[in-house]
Amino acid sequence: MASPNTTTTTTSAAAAPGSGRGALRLLRSRLPFAAAARPGGRPATALRATAPPAAPELVEQSVNTIRFLAVDAVEKAQSGHPGLPMGCAPLGHVLFDEFLRFNPKNPAWFDRDRFVLSAGHGCMLQYALLHLAGYDGVTMDDLKAFRQWRSRTPGHPENFETAGVEVTTGPLGQGFANAVGLALAEKHLAARFNKTDLKIVDHYTYVILGDGCQMEGVSNEAASLAGHWGLGKLIAFYDDNHISIDGSTDIAFTEDVLARYEALGWHTIWVKNGNTGYDDIRAAIKEAKGVKDKPTLIKVTTTIGFGSPNKANTYSVHGSALGSKEVEATRSNLHWLHEPFHVPDEVKRYWSHHIDEGASLEAEWNAKFAEYENKYHQEAAELKSIVSGELPSGWDNALPTYTPESSPDATRNLSQHCLNSLAKVIPGFLGGSADLASSNMTLLKMFGDFQRDTPEERNIRFGVREHGMGAICNGIAVHSPGLIPYCATFFVFTDYMRAAIRLSALSESGVIFVMTHDSIGLGEDGPTHQPVEQLLSLRAMPNILMLRPADGNETSGAYKIAFLNRKRPSIIALSRQKLPQLKGTSVDAVSKGGYIISDNSSGNKPELIVIGTGSELEIAERAADELRKEGRTVRVVSLVCWELFEEQSEKYKESVLPSEVTSRISIEAGVTFGWEKYIGQKGKAIGIDRFGASAPAGKIYKELGLTVGNVIAAAKAL
Amino acid sequence: MASPNTTTTTTSAAAAPGSGRGALRLLRSRLPFAAAARPGGRPATALRATAPPAAPELVEQSVNTIRFLAVDAVEKAQSGHPGLPMGCAPLGHVLFDEFLRFNPKNPAWFDRDRFVLSAGHGCMLQYALLHLAGYDGVTMDDLKAFRQWRSRTPGHPENFETAGVEVTTGPLGQGFANAVGLALAEKHLAARFNKTDLKIVDHYTYVILGDGCQMEGVSNEAASLAGHWGLGKLIAFYDDNHISIDGSTDIAFTEDVLARYEALGWHTIWVKNGNTGYDDIRAAIKEAKGVKDKPTLIKVTTTIGFGSPNKANTYSVHGSALGSKEVEATRSNLHWLHEPFHVPDEVKRYWSHHIDEGASLEAEWNAKFAEYENKYHQEAAELKSIVSGELPSGWDNALPTYTPESSPDATRNLSQHCLNSLAKVIPGFLGGSADLASSNMTLLKMFGDFQRDTPEERNIRFGVREHGMGAICNGIAVHSPGLIPYCATFFVFTDYMRAAIRLSALSESGVIFVMTHDSIGLGEDGPTHQPVEQLLSLRAMPNILMLRPADGNETSGAYKIAFLNRKRPSIIALSRQKLPQLKGTSVDAVSKGGYIISDNSSGNKPELIVIGTGSELEIAERAADELRKEGRTVRVVSLVCWELFEEQSEKYKESVLPSEVTSRISIEAGVTFGWEKYIGQKGKAIGIDRFGASAPAGKIYKELGLTVGNVIAAAKAL
Repeated sequence: MASPNTTTTTTSAAAAPGSGRGALRLLRSRLPFAAAARPGGRPATALRATAPPAAPELVEQSVNTIRFLAVDAVEKAQSGHPGLPMGCAPLGHVLFDEFLRFNPKNPAWFDRDRFVLSAGHGCMLQYALLHLAGYDGVTMDDLKAFRQWRSRTPGHPENFETAGVEVTTGPLGQGFANAVGLALAEKHLAARFNKTDLKIVDHYTYVILGDGCQMEGVSNEAASLAGHWGLGKLIAFYDDNHISIDGSTDIAFTEDVLARYEALGWHTIWVKNGNTGYDDIRAAIKEAKGVKDKPTLIKVTTTIGFGSPNKANTYSVHGSALGSKEVEATRSNLHWLHEPFHVPDEVKRYWSHHIDEGASLEAEWNAKFAEYENKYHQEAAELKSIVSGELPSGWDNALPTYTPESSPDATRNLSQHCLNSLAKVIPGFLGGSADLASSNMTLLKMFGDFQRDTPEERNIRFGVREHGMGAICNGIAVHSPGLIPYCATFFVFTDYMRAAIRLSALSESGVIFVMTHDSIGLGEDGPTHQPVEQLLSLRAMPNILMLRPADGNETSGAYKIAFLNRKRPSIIALSRQKLPQLKGTSVDAVSKGGYIISDNSSGNKPELIVIGTGSELEIAERAADELRKEGRTVRVVSLVCWELFEEQSEKYKESVLPSEVTSRISIEAGVTFGWEKYIGQKGKAIGIDRFGASAPAGKIYKELGLTVGNVIAAAKAL
Repeated sequence: MASPNTTTTTTSAAAAPGSGRGALRLLRSRLPFAAAARPGGRPATALRATAPPAAPELVEQSVNTIRFLAVDAVEKAQSGHPGLPMGCAPLGHVLFDEFLRFNPKNPAWFDRDRFVLSAGHGCMLQYALLHLAGYDGVTMDDLKAFRQWRSRTPGHPENFETAGVEVTTGPLGQGFANAVGLALAEKHLAARFNKTDLKIVDHYTYVILGDGCQMEGVSNEAASLAGHWGLGKLIAFYDDNHISIDGSTDIAFTEDVLARYEALGWHTIWVKNGNTGYDDIRAAIKEAKGVKDKPTLIKVTTTIGFGSPNKANTYSVHGSALGSKEVEATRSNLHWLHEPFHVPDEVKRYWSHHIDEGASLEAEWNAKFAEYENKYHQEAAELKSIVSGELPSGWDNALPTYTPESSPDATRNLSQHCLNSLAKVIPGFLGGSADLASSNMTLLKMFGDFQRDTPEERNIRFGVREHGMGAICNGIAVHSPGLIPYCATFFVFTDYMRAAIRLSALSESGVIFVMTHDSIGLGEDGPTHQPVEQLLSLRAMPNILMLRPADGNETSGAYKIAFLNRKRPSIIALSRQKLPQLKGTSVDAVSKGGYIISDNSSGNKPELIVIGTGSELEIAERAADELRKEGRTVRVVSLVCWELFEEQSEKYKESVLPSEVTSRISIEAGVTFGWEKYIGQKGKAIGIDRFGASAPAGKIYKELGLTVGNVIAAAKAL
C-alpha cells in the first residue's frame, strides 16, 4: 500500500546532479535570503564551498596536527590506538574539511552529514577532527584527558559522552551497520518529505571501517542490505592497512573485499595511496557522490602508524602507546618539532572557517524549512515531530484496550494491533522483521515495503539478518529523536543480535525489539528455537527494559512504555500461542513493572503470593482461583517488567510483595535463576532449568511442569 | 614451530586423484585382505561402488519416496517444513546414494563422510534419507512420531537425539559454519596422520544450506575462513529456491551469491535444474571433488515444495503442513498413489545395499588402521586417542600449580601456561583466537599456525569473526570425541557468538571458551569492551560451565574441569590485570564449584561470609583479613563455578554456606542480579549495576565501589 507521500517517491533517486556542497550552491541561488537567517552567519557563498582546498603545505600541517594529537593523547594516557589515526589522518582531513557538511556549534543540526568511525578504537582521529573543526564538546583539555574517568574523550567513541559523535562504536562492524541505518533514515525521510522545489532532507552518511569490521559477519549483513536498497548516499571508506591485532591480515583474511562488495551491489573504488594521495581521495569521494543508485566502498590503502620509523606497518602500533623514544623518532621523521598537543596557529586559523560556514549551512536550512513550513504545512509538522522527537499529543489513545470478555489471542497478534494503531499516529515509526513478518505479526498494513524504489514506505524487510537488523535500527534511532524503529525475530534469536541490543542499551537508542515465540510455548520447533535463558539474561543487561506482557492490556501497556522510553530500548517478549484476556491487568499498571492482578486477602497479608509473567500469568491466576476455592487467601502478581518494578518506591514494592509474606511461588517458562530475588529463600520457583524439547506446546508445558496442578502442589508444600 | 608430524604436511594437498570412492578402490587394490576384516562384510568391489547409479525410474521412485515421507510426516504432525525436502529430494538422493560414504550400522565410524543440513528446518529430508539408508536411529515409527515428545525425529536435527545426525541445526547459518569446522578437522587430521602409503583420514564434508543461511553473517565469516584455508574437501550445496518465510527472496536478498563466494576464494558451480537434472547434480559433485585447493559451493536451483500443484514456489509450503487436500493433489500430480508413509519394496531393496557396503567400508578402514598401527605405532596411539576421546592417563599432571609465594599474574597469562602444558599431552587439543591471540594469551608456542599449507599445525587464526569461530569450534568438537577445540576473544564479545555458544551447550560439544578481559578491570577501552552482565547471563544458560578463576591454582582447576567435561562446554573468564596467588585456593577444589578459602571461625558458624569470584576474591580476602584483625570471625568463599556448586550435596553446600549465617556479602565485578541466591535477602551484593566506563582500571574499581573499604563498610552495616 502507498503512503500519503507517493508523489515524492523518486525524488531521492533523482537527486540534483551536484548534491552535497554543489547542491547547496544550487539551493542558495534559489534562496538568496537564507544566509541572513541566522545572525552572524556569513553567506556561505563567500566561504570555502566555492574555494579550492587548502594549500598543500597547510593540508600537510593539518594532517600532521591530527597525527600528533593522536600520538600525544595516547602517550599521555599510556593507553589507546595511535595506528589508525596516523594512517587515516589524510582521509580524515579531506573528508572533514572538504566534504562533510556540519555545524560545529550545533552538532544536532538535522540536515548535517553523518560521520561514523566504525573502527572505533581509532577514536583519537575523530576527537582530533572534532576539536579542529570547532566542536565545543572536544576541547584541548578533553584531548588531554583522553581515556580518563568522566572525560568526554573515552577509549571508544560514545554518542552519549561526546557531542559530535553520532553512534557508539568499538565492537567491530557495528558502526558500519549503524551507518547503513543512518543512510536508510535519510533515504526514507528524503522520499517522504522532499518536494521538487524544496529538498529539505539531503545529506550523506560517511563511515570509516577497518579490516576487523570487514571480517565481522554483521558488516556483510548490513552491506548486503545497503546494496539491495541502493543507498546511494552512503559512502564507506575501508581503511585497508593490512594489519590487525594478530599481525598481517594475511593470516586470516585473504578474500577479495572489493569483489565481495561488488557482488553485494556496491560501487567500489580503490585509492592505492591513502598516505599521501590527497587528490586521489578527493576524486574518489567525488566519484562516489556521483553514483546515485548504489552505495560506494572506497578502499583506501594506508600505512598503519604512518610516520613512525620503527613501528609503522606493524601490529605494535595498533593498540599501544608508541613510547617516548618512538614518539621522538616519529616527530623527527615527520619534521614535527613541536611540544605535545601543539596545534599550529595557521592550522587553527584555517579550520576556524567551519564555524561560520556551519552556522550558514544551518541558517540556510532553517530558512528553507521556514519556506517548506509555509508551503507544506502538514508535512512540515510531521517532519518537525521527527526532528524534535516530540510525540503527538494523545498518541497513546491509539492503543487498544480489552476486557476479560475480549477474545483470547496470542500476544504477538495483540502486538500487531498496537504496531498498526501506533503507525497511524507516530510519524517516525517504522521497522520490520528478519524474515519472520508473518510469524512475528509485524507488518504495518497501511504501508508498503521500504525498498530501493519505494523508500517512503515503512515496512523494512531485513531478510534473515538479525544482527544487521539490530545495528541498522540503532542507526535509524540515532538519526533523529523522533525516528522510532522496531525490529522483530523469534525471541531465542536475540542471541544472534545481542551485541547490537547491548549497544542499543549503552548508546541510549530507543529501539523497540519485538520478540515473539517467547517460550517453549512455540512447540514443535524444539530447543533450538525455544528460549529459556533469554528472559533472565536480558533482564541482567543495564539500561534496557525487558517486558513480557500477559494479554492485550499488558501488550498495549508494554508499547506505551516502549514509546515513552526514548533513551532506553525495550524488548517485548510475545507469545505464539493464544492467551485469555485477564481480569486484573491494565495498560497503565505496566508502568509499575509489577502489580497485583487479583487478591482475596485483606490487610496486605495474603497467605500466598503467586507471581507470573506473560503466558504463565494465566496459570498463576487459575491456580489461585482453585486455592481460593479451598479457602486460602492468595494474591496474584504480574511482574511484567522487573526493571520498572525495581524503580518503584519501597512503599509501593512492599504493597505488592509484603516482606512478611514469605510463601511465594513464581511461575515462568524460563530458567528459575534470578527469581530468588522475588520469592526469597523460602519460596518456590517453577520454571525450566534445562533446554526445551520438540513436541506440541501443551505437551511440553505439561511434561516440564508448568501447570496449574504444579502451582497448587507447590502451594500446599510451602 | 613445527609439529612432530611435519613429514606429512603436504599429503592432504596432494590427495590421490580419484579420492572418495575412486580412492577407495585404489586402496583396496593395495589391501586385498581388507574386505574380510569385518565378518559379514562383502567385498566392497562387488558392491555399487563399481556399479552405475540406479536406473532412472528407480531414482525417481526413491526421490518421490523421500518427498512423500516428508509430506506425510509433516501432515501427521500438523507441523513442520515440507517445502525443502520436496525441493531437495533429488539432491538428497544423489548425494546419499551415490557419493556419501557411511556405515548405517555404525554412525560413529571415524572415517565416514560428514553430512550437515544447515537448513535444519528441512530435517524430514535428512530423516527420510537416514531411514532409507538403514540407520537404526530412524525407523518408520520414528518418522511417524515426527516432532512428538521424546521422539528421535525432533523439529530440527539434533545430534544428541538422532544417531546419524552430526550436528544440531536450525538457527540459520550455524550448520554451514559447523561444516567448515568438520572439514577443518579432517584436513588437520589428514595432514597429521596420513602417510604416503596409508591415507587413514580421508573423507568429505557435505552441507546443504538455504537462502536464510546465506543471509546470516555467520556464514560469510565461516565461508571467508574456508576459502582462506583452502578446504578442498568441503562441498556446500546452496538450495537456491528463491523463497523464504516472508515470500520471494527478492524483497531482501538480491546479491550475487556465487560472485561473493568467488571473492571469498571458493570454487562455484551452478546446477540450474535441481528438480530433475540428476546428471547435472552428479557432474557438479564430481567436479567439486576434483577441486582440491578450494571449497566448492554448488548452487542448486530448486522449486520449494516441488510437486505441490498449488503451493510449490510459494512461502506457504515452507513451514506448514500442506493440508489434506493439497497432499492429495500432490500425490496425484506426482503419480504417487500410495498410502501415507509408503516405501515401495523396490526402493527398500535398492537402498539396502548400503548396509553391506557400509560394513565393508568400515571393515576396510579397520584393516587399514590395523596396518597403520603396525607400521606407525605412535601416530596410531595418538589417533586412537582422538577417535575414542580417551584422555592420556595422568594428563592432568601437566597442569601447573602455585603457592602464595608464586608471582602475581593475570589469569590470562596463567591460562596460557595451562594451554601450553596441556597441548603437550592432549593430542586432540587445538584452537585459537578471534584476532586477539596476543591479548587473550592463547598461542600454543610449540606449534605453528593452522593454514592452507600447514594444516598439521594447531594455532587457528580466526580473524575478527567471533561467531564463525564459535560455530567452527562446535564442528571441530563433534568431528571426533578426542578433538578438544578452544577459542578465545574478549569476554564481552561472547555477545557476538552467543548463538554458537548456546548450540555448543545444547549439542553437547565440549568446546572450551577462553574469555579474557573479563571485567571493568580491562580499564581504558571503556564500556563497549567491559563485560558486566555476561557472567550472570551465561550462568543462566543450561548445560554449560561458567568458570571464573581467581588465581593460578583456580585457573589450572578450571582447565581440568573443562577437559573432563566433554559433553558440556566451559567458559573460562580471565583477567587482564595481575592478581596475587591466594593462600586457600586449590586446583581440585574448583570441581566443587564453591569452597572455603579462609576462615577464622569454628563450628561452621562465622559471623560473616564474604563470597567472591575471580579478580574480586582477593578483595574479599583482604577485607576479611582487616575484619579479623578487629576480632570478627569471617569466612571467605570462592564461588568459581555456580553450576558445579549447585551439583554438590546439600550437606556440602551447607558446610560452605550454612543457612544459619545470614550475614553475607558478595563481591564481583558484574551485575549483582542473581546473587540473591547466595547472599539471601539480608545479604549485601557488591557489584556493578550499570555499564562500565573508560578510565584506568584502578580508578574504575574505586569509583564503582569494588574496594576493600566497601566490603568492610558493608560488613559493619549488616
